[in-house]
Amino acid sequence: MCRRSPDPGTVTAAQLTLVQIDNYGPWTVTPEPRREMDLQTLQSRLFADMAQYIGNRGGYVFFTRFDNMVAVTNGLDRRDHELLQESVGNRFPVTVSLGVGVDEVPIDALETATERVQAAGSAQSSDRSEALAGEFHGGEPTDDDVHIAHFDVNDATGKYTDRLNEFDSFINIEQGYASLMKYMREEHGALSFFVGGDNVIAACPDVSHDDYRNAIDHVAGDAEVQLKVGVGSGSTPHEAGFAAKHALEDCRYEGTLVEFA
Amino acid sequence: MCRRSPDPGTVTAAQLTLVQIDNYGPWTVTPEPRREMDLQTLQSRLFADMAQYIGNRGGYVFFTRFDNMVAVTNGLDRRDHELLQESVGNRFPVTVSLGVGVDEVPIDALETATERVQAAGSAQSSDRSEALAGEFHGGEPTDDDVHIAHFDVNDATGKYTDRLNEFDSFINIEQGYASLMKYMREEHGALSFFVGGDNVIAACPDVSHDDYRNAIDHVAGDAEVQLKVGVGSGSTPHEAGFAAKHALEDCRYEGTLVEFA
Amino acid sequence: MCRRSPDPGTVTAAQLTLVQIDNYGPWTVTPEPRREMDLQTLQSRLFADMAQYIGNRGGYVFFTRFDNMVAVTNGLDRRDHELLQESVGNRFPVTVSLGVGVDEVPIDALETATERVQAAGSAQSSDRSEALAGEFHGGEPTDDDVHIAHFDVNDATGKYTDRLNEFDSFINIEQGYASLMKYMREEHGALSFFVGGDNVIAACPDVSHDDYRNAIDHVAGDAEVQLKVGVGSGSTPHEAGFAAKHALEDCRYEGTLVEFA
Amino acid sequence: MCRRSPDPGTVTAAQLTLVQIDNYGPWTVTPEPRREMDLQTLQSRLFADMAQYIGNRGGYVFFTRFDNMVAVTNGLDRRDHELLQESVGNRFPVTVSLGVGVDEVPIDALETATERVQAAGSAQSSDRSEALAGEFHGGEPTDDDVHIAHFDVNDATGKYTDRLNEFDSFINIEQGYASLMKYMREEHGALSFFVGGDNVIAACPDVSHDDYRNAIDHVAGDAEVQLKVGVGSGSTPHEAGFAAKHALEDCRYEGTLVEFA
Repeated sequence: MCRRSPDPGTVTAAQLTLVQIDNYGPWTVTPEPRREMDLQTLQSRLFADMAQYIGNRGGYVFFTRFDNMVAVTNGLDRRDHELLQESVGNRFPVTVSLGVGVDEVPIDALETATERVQAAGSAQSSDRSEALAGEFHGGEPTDDDVHIAHFDVNDATGKYTDRLNEFDSFINIEQGYASLMKYMREEHGALSFFVGGDNVIAACPDVSHDDYRNAIDHVAGDAEVQLKVGVGSGSTPHEAGFAAKHALEDCRYEGTLVEFA
Repeated sequence: MCRRSPDPGTVTAAQLTLVQIDNYGPWTVTPEPRREMDLQTLQSRLFADMAQYIGNRGGYVFFTRFDNMVAVTNGLDRRDHELLQESVGNRFPVTVSLGVGVDEVPIDALETATERVQAAGSAQSSDRSEALAGEFHGGEPTDDDVHIAHFDVNDATGKYTDRLNEFDSFINIEQGYASLMKYMREEHGALSFFVGGDNVIAACPDVSHDDYRNAIDHVAGDAEVQLKVGVGSGSTPHEAGFAAKHALEDCRYEGTLVEFA
Repeated sequence: MCRRSPDPGTVTAAQLTLVQIDNYGPWTVTPEPRREMDLQTLQSRLFADMAQYIGNRGGYVFFTRFDNMVAVTNGLDRRDHELLQESVGNRFPVTVSLGVGVDEVPIDALETATERVQAAGSAQSSDRSEALAGEFHGGEPTDDDVHIAHFDVNDATGKYTDRLNEFDSFINIEQGYASLMKYMREEHGALSFFVGGDNVIAACPDVSHDDYRNAIDHVAGDAEVQLKVGVGSGSTPHEAGFAAKHALEDCRYEGTLVEFA
Repeated sequence: MCRRSPDPGTVTAAQLTLVQIDNYGPWTVTPEPRREMDLQTLQSRLFADMAQYIGNRGGYVFFTRFDNMVAVTNGLDRRDHELLQESVGNRFPVTVSLGVGVDEVPIDALETATERVQAAGSAQSSDRSEALAGEFHGGEPTDDDVHIAHFDVNDATGKYTDRLNEFDSFINIEQGYASLMKYMREEHGALSFFVGGDNVIAACPDVSHDDYRNAIDHVAGDAEVQLKVGVGSGSTPHEAGFAAKHALEDCRYEGTLVEFA
């Protein structure tokens, strides 16, 4: 596994936040199992509110496992995190703990973020509530702080959605995602998230064109799914991700597999 | 791949609905790429509304790829589907097409459901809007119409959530899911959906105790993730799923790997 | 005040439900006052969910004071009410009590509904939680069970919205509403609710064309606001209200002040 | 009517934003009237999202007529307004126009804000979409920029909610509100909004203790509703409103009718 040591002299770094619902597992079955569709509603609406709050401050959040969500939060400070926590507590029947870490390599930032939450108590402890711990990106933002790669599947509609039944389409997308997420994490310490349709968005360190090409080749060989990718950088996830989307449009137009903004 | 022919004489059958957002891909990049967190919000809130509407009529819906959602809709008739479609159109900037199929084997029901939507036009056609086609479960509901299996990971909190960083926990859960979804589909024509945390819910045909045990063993060998499962049946997904949740609680209490309600 | 005695032989009747948040006042200031915009969000989303749940079963719900909402629920039985209560409890940090009453005259039905909730405990008692009490419309639905009047202001956009500042527009609409709600309640036992824009929807007993004309004249004289109204009947609020909307369109087209569907 | 001229030398001022849904009236009846409960859901969810977005930046927004909402937005700049507009357009089937004005007296600020939107086109013009016009509070924020008065009804639960049917409780609250809103606007150029329960929140200029006492006496005489009020000031509505809530708690504790933070 890749675990690059951050260069102490570097000033470019991603800020990662772990959002973990407090004591959620026990809550879902107390006093007896709750209706599954109510849980699905609660989870997806909590995520939607996170997406709005974090998103309109320039950040990105991914649903991950829903009871644990991962966010790239460059641009959000401690006060922003406190307010998010307070607002969730005022409007939902559950509370969230937040851990924050900063590192050039996203997995290392998330490692720190997770440790902070774990140190405050178990995910299934009734004693822990609304913990907030971690370090925030203190320096000046730079255009190189965040790198976002936006992958999608080549002609997913023509090859899958319009031809196969939806579950078999989904299996293909899912196997491609499972392969990509593992490869990118092991090779680059990058965090790849399925975001719906045939799209995967990854928070990456500074990865080269050839390395992205290798990732795509790996998935094509491993899961028989043909990806392409647009890559962007910026001082916030939104800036980097927006550039990545435009780069992906370039792939579509040019017929290429890897484009940098 | 398993494709059991439905016995024409059988009266027990699941009703599957494919929900597909009309022309969503092009919409997300017109006139230029839309903010990703707005798309995430839109998708998860649309799913949440589906979960409420379908769920409080006894059905289950899964987010799948968000632009395509799969629902088990025993108990919902044509009028219920029309009203869902109308209400979405009144409140969201997108519309949905719905296809419905009925079969003892979920994948076969979904095959029919998908074909009905595909026949109405491409997922990326601007001509198709709010198509609704398919067959509905016309007979008397029986306690054997729907089989739901609720899987979770043994001690996921102790082994993963409280020990690893969140992404590595997620990779483990995800690899286990990718293995299970493929196995259950190929062996049994079952549809397995990750529903958050360490939980997977599957719409299954009438699968035996030994077959569930084989599925769990397969995932343990293939992805090194130890699952357990509770299984329930009923005339609606909620009834079957609620029984399955209780059976899963029995696994927890008894230390067993497979329990039927 | 008008309090018609219901004819014991009548079978046409509205079913009214009072939705009251349990112990909400104290909750909003415990342990200290909660952020007002979080309370506003919570209240309006709870109402939105009520509107979906009750609305897609043919009912109408009005936000009234938000901590107390009034619904016309012909078509929803006890089980529907229980499920609504359960689902709110699963997804919000507050619970609701429900009282139900049935009567030809809406205010009398609401009187019964309110008494049932009051009998279960104070609105600010921490002992009362999720009370559900009342009687349900047991007979066959008839096309005459529910009468809905949909009022709006003649040329509100031209006279107010496009000419005055928004608060002065609002004052005009509001004074008209305050006058109408009082008159219709006192003269007819009808319940009138502002529903946004320049619209007021009233749940009424069987009121005549001349009586509606008198109400409009009263408001014109009392508050100098010129209303018009469309009236419809049906077995559910949606049916009656939809007919009323069409009748109001007829007013617009014909230049009349009162139209029945 | 009171229309104080702003002192050009003053630096304390409220920033008011008018949010107006574009061409909403026609949309609600095209191609035929839309289901009322879908409109109610759409309106209240749009308001909820405004409350979150504006609220977690320190502002206040009031639902007013839902198709027109009034916000106090000190602390939100042009970019914040643009992003709000973009996000609504990405997630709802309607768009909003925004007008902004700044003045010591709220009604004058709203007058400017409204004129800006009106100048861009009629509320029912299909040509106007997402207009954004106005002036923003450019100076340093001061603790005296925003004055918020939080009124409630003395013992509303004991006198109304636990004793009368809900509609008669509502009539009392509503008549009190109609009286207060008119008085405060005419005497002080203040904007008073019902916010649920028995609460009214007013954006005010710098009004004295005696003036608040006169307002309360006026409503007691005019509508027979006994109010009390807490008043706060701050650089943002949240700060001012939070102080007002605490002052209102003081009224409760001390048995007084007017308290300043």
